[in-house]
Amino acid sequence: MYRPEIKVLDCTIRDGGLMNKWQFDDAYVKAVYDACVASGVDIMELGYKSSENAFSRNEVGVWKFCDDQDIRRVIGDNNTNMKLAAMADIGRIEPDDIAPASESIIDVMRVAAYAHQMDEAIWLAHHCMDKGYEVTVNLMAVSNVMERDLDEALKDLAKSRVPVVYLVDSFGSMYCEQIEMLAKKYQTYMPGKTIGLHMHNNMQLAFSNTITGIINNCNYIDATFMGIGRGAGNCPIEILMSFLKNPKYKVAPILQVIQDYMLEMQKNIDWGYHIPYLITGAMNAHPRSALSWMDNPATKNDFITFFNQMNDKKDL
Amino acid sequence: MYRPEIKVLDCTIRDGGLMNKWQFDDAYVKAVYDACVASGVDIMELGYKSSENAFSRNEVGVWKFCDDQDIRRVIGDNNTNMKLAAMADIGRIEPDDIAPASESIIDVMRVAAYAHQMDEAIWLAHHCMDKGYEVTVNLMAVSNVMERDLDEALKDLAKSRVPVVYLVDSFGSMYCEQIEMLAKKYQTYMPGKTIGLHMHNNMQLAFSNTITGIINNCNYIDATFMGIGRGAGNCPIEILMSFLKNPKYKVAPILQVIQDYMLEMQKNIDWGYHIPYLITGAMNAHPRSALSWMDNPATKNDFITFFNQMNDKKDL
Repeated sequence: MYRPEIKVLDCTIRDGGLMNKWQFDDAYVKAVYDACVASGVDIMELGYKSSENAFSRNEVGVWKFCDDQDIRRVIGDNNTNMKLAAMADIGRIEPDDIAPASESIIDVMRVAAYAHQMDEAIWLAHHCMDKGYEVTVNLMAVSNVMERDLDEALKDLAKSRVPVVYLVDSFGSMYCEQIEMLAKKYQTYMPGKTIGLHMHNNMQLAFSNTITGIINNCNYIDATFMGIGRGAGNCPIEILMSFLKNPKYKVAPILQVIQDYMLEMQKNIDWGYHIPYLITGAMNAHPRSALSWMDNPATKNDFITFFNQMNDKKDL
Repeated sequence: MYRPEIKVLDCTIRDGGLMNKWQFDDAYVKAVYDACVASGVDIMELGYKSSENAFSRNEVGVWKFCDDQDIRRVIGDNNTNMKLAAMADIGRIEPDDIAPASESIIDVMRVAAYAHQMDEAIWLAHHCMDKGYEVTVNLMAVSNVMERDLDEALKDLAKSRVPVVYLVDSFGSMYCEQIEMLAKKYQTYMPGKTIGLHMHNNMQLAFSNTITGIINNCNYIDATFMGIGRGAGNCPIEILMSFLKNPKYKVAPILQVIQDYMLEMQKNIDWGYHIPYLITGAMNAHPRSALSWMDNPATKNDFITFFNQMNDKKDL
């Protein structure tokens, strides 16, 4: 699969940080950064831009805030062709705290929002664009949104100046026919805008749904090293890079980081395909119940009790 | 996805046995059998039918031979609606040793063959049909076969009495566009025959390729518990059962076996998504080099050396 418009966005630190409260060693973040540059990754997302009031630095690592000084301390001044991104969650950031892009090492701000927050998301996205950032809006959890409400959100985005809108499978509950339908819908409602893809791997479909989206003309592709991310994780970037034919993409630097760091990380962080994540994905449910189930060593492997609990809940 | 023609075939013991020389505990085989019956699996493949001359019983377990007495000792007389299958590899079985179906607990014989063996495979399939068995032919490694040779094999199968032909992704190297093309080709060349699907998971595409095949009217679906199988393994049956809407299929009995047996097995058998299997899959190569790499504890996690070796080989 080769198409020059494709851009690969690595969100290893941002989405992977959901599993360890962004408490990555500096050496690991630097290794991921170096591998992204060497592999031809177009954009690397380093974490969240958050208000100091929203989270305590005693509980979460520096990548929950993405201060310029922390970024520069770890990766330097980023004199490369790769852009740096941070994600802003609606309600967890003070818009006035966002520095002008000309003063920041960050190039791209990604605004994550639910359909019912679209007015606020578009306001924040425009605010960031006016400060000089490239911007995307990541419309979350659309598998749980009524079609009318999704259509309204897409119409609002169509009228906005936001250039890139992400198709997001937050719960890892979708398969190819749904991705194809939504990719076509997004393009029909928002002609001229670039569509991005952010998939989760609960049913081992993150990479294949990404392929389906690429076939249907989506061009911003999120992926992470070894698929690390919340719960079942994301599209594994090493598979994506093995698949894409754009000659600038290389897989070996990514494999080196997996070899040097991530096999060890896997012993302590339970991302990836695990039965509780499959259960929430197959039920089109938020992964939070599976995450808390997996957090308890006494219960994590009792799949049947979790399955029964989830089915009881579904019957309510 | 609901279609009454769909039949799920569990090949946990047969394909999983490639990773431990079919040396499964009787209790595990019985648990998988009971779970298959309770889950509505249509056909369970227990292993290979092999000649005593082809393998030593000191090296391989009883499921490499599938003698009736071993099957009955472990699972009883199979007074259920689920059929039992065994696979016959061309050249590793004496046709005269195959008992008439009326005298055997086995219902279905699956003949596995490469395209260049098709004459012999059709002869053996007819031989088994004449003995009263249901029969499938599993046409292996088609991603490495020239189109002309594949077409000839399909034409030969079209003229045969074989009712079911499998589309097999032996190397785990294919994605949805290739599966769709082949599924359509198989149906075009062999009108009236049922097409089966046997996918491997090197690029985490086994389940999604199975979905693509189902969408394209393939109706026999191979899968295994937790995806166990050679190398990266197969389509995980617990995901398939969570996805199919046929009301007879249940996932809970399968989850129980995963919980009770397979988390422990995973500590000793390296099936599933591992980088060396990704490398051979992405290169459309037989997994044997990755399997032997993974077998050596000193090298198994040195992905870069394996990647470089594979790329050198490719340049020859």
